[in-house]
Formats: sequence, C-alpha cells, structure tokens
Amino acid sequence: MSPPSSSSGSSVLIVGSMAFDDLDLPTGPARNVVGGSATYASIAASFYAPVRIVAVVGDDFPNETLELLGARDVDCAGVERAKGKTFRWAGRYAQNLASRETLDTQLNVFADFRPKLPSHYGDSRIVLLGNIHPALQLEVLEKTKSPKLTIADTMNFWISGERPALLDVLAKVDVLVVNDEEIRQLSGDHNLRRAAAAVMKMGPKRLVVKRGDAGAMLFDEHGIFFSPAYPLENEVDPTGAGDTFAGAIAGYLARAERIDANTFRQALMIGAAAASYCVEGVGTTELVRVSRDHLSGRLRDLYALLDVDRA
Amino acid sequence: MSPPSSSSGSSVLIVGSMAFDDLDLPTGPARNVVGGSATYASIAASFYAPVRIVAVVGDDFPNETLELLGARDVDCAGVERAKGKTFRWAGRYAQNLASRETLDTQLNVFADFRPKLPSHYGDSRIVLLGNIHPALQLEVLEKTKSPKLTIADTMNFWISGERPALLDVLAKVDVLVVNDEEIRQLSGDHNLRRAAAAVMKMGPKRLVVKRGDAGAMLFDEHGIFFSPAYPLENEVDPTGAGDTFAGAIAGYLARAERIDANTFRQALMIGAAAASYCVEGVGTTELVRVSRDHLSGRLRDLYALLDVDRA
Repeated sequence: MSPPSSSSGSSVLIVGSMAFDDLDLPTGPARNVVGGSATYASIAASFYAPVRIVAVVGDDFPNETLELLGARDVDCAGVERAKGKTFRWAGRYAQNLASRETLDTQLNVFADFRPKLPSHYGDSRIVLLGNIHPALQLEVLEKTKSPKLTIADTMNFWISGERPALLDVLAKVDVLVVNDEEIRQLSGDHNLRRAAAAVMKMGPKRLVVKRGDAGAMLFDEHGIFFSPAYPLENEVDPTGAGDTFAGAIAGYLARAERIDANTFRQALMIGAAAASYCVEGVGTTELVRVSRDHLSGRLRDLYALLDVDRA
Repeated sequence: MSPPSSSSGSSVLIVGSMAFDDLDLPTGPARNVVGGSATYASIAASFYAPVRIVAVVGDDFPNETLELLGARDVDCAGVERAKGKTFRWAGRYAQNLASRETLDTQLNVFADFRPKLPSHYGDSRIVLLGNIHPALQLEVLEKTKSPKLTIADTMNFWISGERPALLDVLAKVDVLVVNDEEIRQLSGDHNLRRAAAAVMKMGPKRLVVKRGDAGAMLFDEHGIFFSPAYPLENEVDPTGAGDTFAGAIAGYLARAERIDANTFRQALMIGAAAASYCVEGVGTTELVRVSRDHLSGRLRDLYALLDVDRA
C-alpha cells in the first residue's frame, strides 16, 4: 500500500481564483503578480498532500505557473483556459500593512466561470471551497462524491450581497474559515464568542477565525483554541496569507490519519507557519522557495510561542 | 518561618492613581466609579501577595474603598489624603468596546502629588510603577531599597510629552508593560518584533505587550511567549483591565519562589485571567467579587486555549 501522501484518496480539491494582482506595497509597486485564492491555497496544501485545482485562467496566464504547480503534485486538469484575460485585482496597502484598499477588480474570464470537475477529482478526501461566489461553491460541492471534510472560505462581499446562497453553503460544509470582521458581519454580533456560536448554528461544526498578526481561533465542540501568528521581523506582502493558511490546513488534514480535535489544532499551527512565509515575499515568491523542512522549523518556533509549564 | 504569601519580603509596592471615573458604556452611563491604576492593580495583586499602595486621594474618596483594600491585605499607609478633590477621568467607549475617547481629565489632588513611602515599604520584593508621570516613577524607584524586580507601565501621553524622563525610567526598570500602540510609538517602528528589540535596548530586560482581546506577548532573552485573552461572552467595561493585568503579574511574581522565564509566562496567564474578570463588571465590581478559586478556574480555561499535542 502506498503512503497516504501519494494515494489519490488523500487529495485536496481546491476551487478558487487564479489571478494577476497589481500591488502597491510599502516596499514599492509590484505588477502582474500571479495570485488568486486557488494559487496560494494549492501551493500551501501541496506541502502535505496531492492537490487538484478547479479554476479558470485567460490566455494571458503563464504556462510556467501551471508547470510549477504540476511539479509540486498539483493537478491542473481542472484549470480551464478560457478566451480572454485572467481575473485581475489591484490593491494598495497601508504603510504598516495592517489595512488595504481595493483599487480595481476585473473579473474577465472569471465572469462566466462555471466549475468543471475532471472525473478523477471525485474521490478527493478534502474539499476546500476558496473565496468565490457561493453559488459556484455549491456547484462544486454537488459534484464531489463524499469528501471526508469540506471547508469553505468567504468574504464581506458575499456576506452582504449573496447571503441566501452563502447560507446554503454554510448548511452543507463542515468548516468555515473567515476573518474577525467577516464573522461579526455574518452574525451581526461584535462579540467573537457569541458570533462564533451564532455562525455554528448556521451549519459548520468548526469555525476558524483569522485575526491577522494576532493569530487565529478555532471554535468547535471541544472548546476554543488560540493559535499564534508567527511574529515576523520583515513583513512584505500579506496578499494570499489567508488562502495560504486555509490551504495548508486542508493539506495537513488530507494527510492526517484521523481528523480529530487535536489534528485540527495542529492544522491551525501548520497554517500559521505557511502563512508566515507567504507574507515574507511578494506574491508566492517565498512560499514556493521554502522547503518542508523550513516549514517544520517555523512550526517549532510557533509551538515555542505557546511554551509554558503550568503552575 | 511564615509562608511567602504573608511575609513582608514577598510584598508588592504599587504606585499609581486612585480616581473617580465617569464612564459612558454601551450598557449605559456609570458615574463616580472608584478606579485608578493603583486601585485596580492592587486588588489584582492582592490575590497572590500582600500589597502596599502609594497614592493620593482627596477628601471625597470613600473610606469604604480603603477599608475594602485593607481587608484584602492591601496596606494603605502610603495613601495620602489631601485637601481637595480626587483625580477624575471621564471617557466614552465605542459600542463594541474596542476603542474609547477621553472626555475629561481633572488632576485635582494628583496635580501636586509627590509620592511618600512609609518606611516599612522599603523591603517590598516587587515594585510596580503604575501609569503616572515618569518623574514620579523615578522618585519611587529611588526610595525603594533593593526590590527583586521592578515593573513599569506608561502611556502615549508620557511617551510623547515626557520622553527624557521616561527614558530614565526605562534605563532603570526590569520590565516594561505597554500596549501595542504604545510600543510602536516608543520605538518609532510599526513592526512589533523590531519595536520590542528597540525598546529592550532602552533598558528593560523583559517587555510585555498588551493587545486587548488578542492577548499579550512577552519578549525576553528566552524568546517570545504568546498569551491569549480569555474570550468573554459578555464584556462590560474594559477600564482598568491593563492595570489589573499588570497588578496580577506583580502579585504572582512576588509570591514565586524563583522568577525565571517560565514563571514570567505563567504570570502573563494569571494576568489575563484577572483582567478578564475586570472586564466583566463596571469598575472593580466583578474583580472584588471573585475568589482565588474562580481565578484558578479561569486560568485552567485559559491554559485550555493553548492545548495542543504536537505532531
């Protein structure tokens, strides 16, 4: 029997965007940066498990990126190449990287995207529904057979504009990954603990709340876990950090023998380690450069942040 | 030999304000609330060690508060009762309690305050310099013999307005407790890790950075520790939470047999437990109501937030 990491039954299916980003960073402008939620998430997941992407790109999207993904055991059979331009996002970050504003969004080929799943994707163990229209997330869910675990990401835009479809997604997924502002918006409650309880009543049995450099919180029936963010000395570009976090979690869980409360807590630590590398470079530059050993080293440093012998 | 908790050699000396606060809270207005950094910090410290306060109050300050403190083994011999009104602060909190604005500050008897230390205060094991003018913090430091450990708090007002005096304090204390905005202001660096390194070069060997409901970070030669805040379901009034946090840390360290890296990490957890009770009531109402057993229970809940078996 082959080890879990190479069997198809331990794969992660990721649907999301593949994009060009134009970034105004404190370190200067960066144009035509290859990004998108599926790109970041699949690179992160591929540290731990085989990945299958469902996405759409235009005829301007570089083959090199797809080849790079392929070399990382990311199956791009579900990446549709459509006539036209790839999805493009432009944003400007504050000097301290703590906030950003969207300058421009061009849907391009993403406007008419309908996810198509190659038949061999059907047995994926984990399904990660990246941040796209909830109706598309639902379509993907319906096309997967019986994943062990489904994880959804979303954003303020869908929470305010597509609430009924989003509630349909929430009723069907196991895990929701959102940031603190999104969970407040979704629940209508500013208190994170009450907000988490309200959102878990909408469906997901587990909830991951991202809080940027303050770390993340996992809510489930076993209680709350508080995972730290790695305190970086040089933050360069937070774009994709949330997708990287979710992708690494999905990859780690795909590989796990058992998905229990502790596995999930470990997965958040793994996610934080991967996300920290994402932030250290423009786009995916650092993320694709680091090795699994690097990641393990940073994970040790992250665990050290929680080291205390109880009195 | 008497146990450490009752010997004078395990006492905490706390200098700071005693005040009336007028609070506009989301739950409604609260007037003439007894507060001040020394009040909150001494109540918190008294869970673990005998406390001595140095402060000033006016002739309007309630005897009941001093009696309540006395009953908690808080020595008020160093609380000067001056002619005039007690220091008064008025503030309004945002609906989500995440920010506040100062509406009014009346120094009153605090304007001419010069700290006077009763002679029996001299042997205090820990000195906590609450958030007052750094020149007064220096005076207190000079009047203490050889405390095992000195801890200072400060605020944006002194960082911008009294920098030379504050730098004198920093050169002489072992530990600085500040919030994230204050350390950024003090160092001129928005990155917390670099900011911490810069501030530790100013003197303190240890640095505690408070981040509200995101928890706190301890920086020292052993690395970084990330302590969570207790996720409350009902936050009522954050006034004094930072002073409570610092006070509980000081009290716990006063009682500790050895003050090492791990003791300090434990102290942050203790501080977070005490601070969470502070936030659950208006002013000190919850803090004076809870028992040491309550505190131990919450501490267990806080440790559970960090529970993860490493892969």
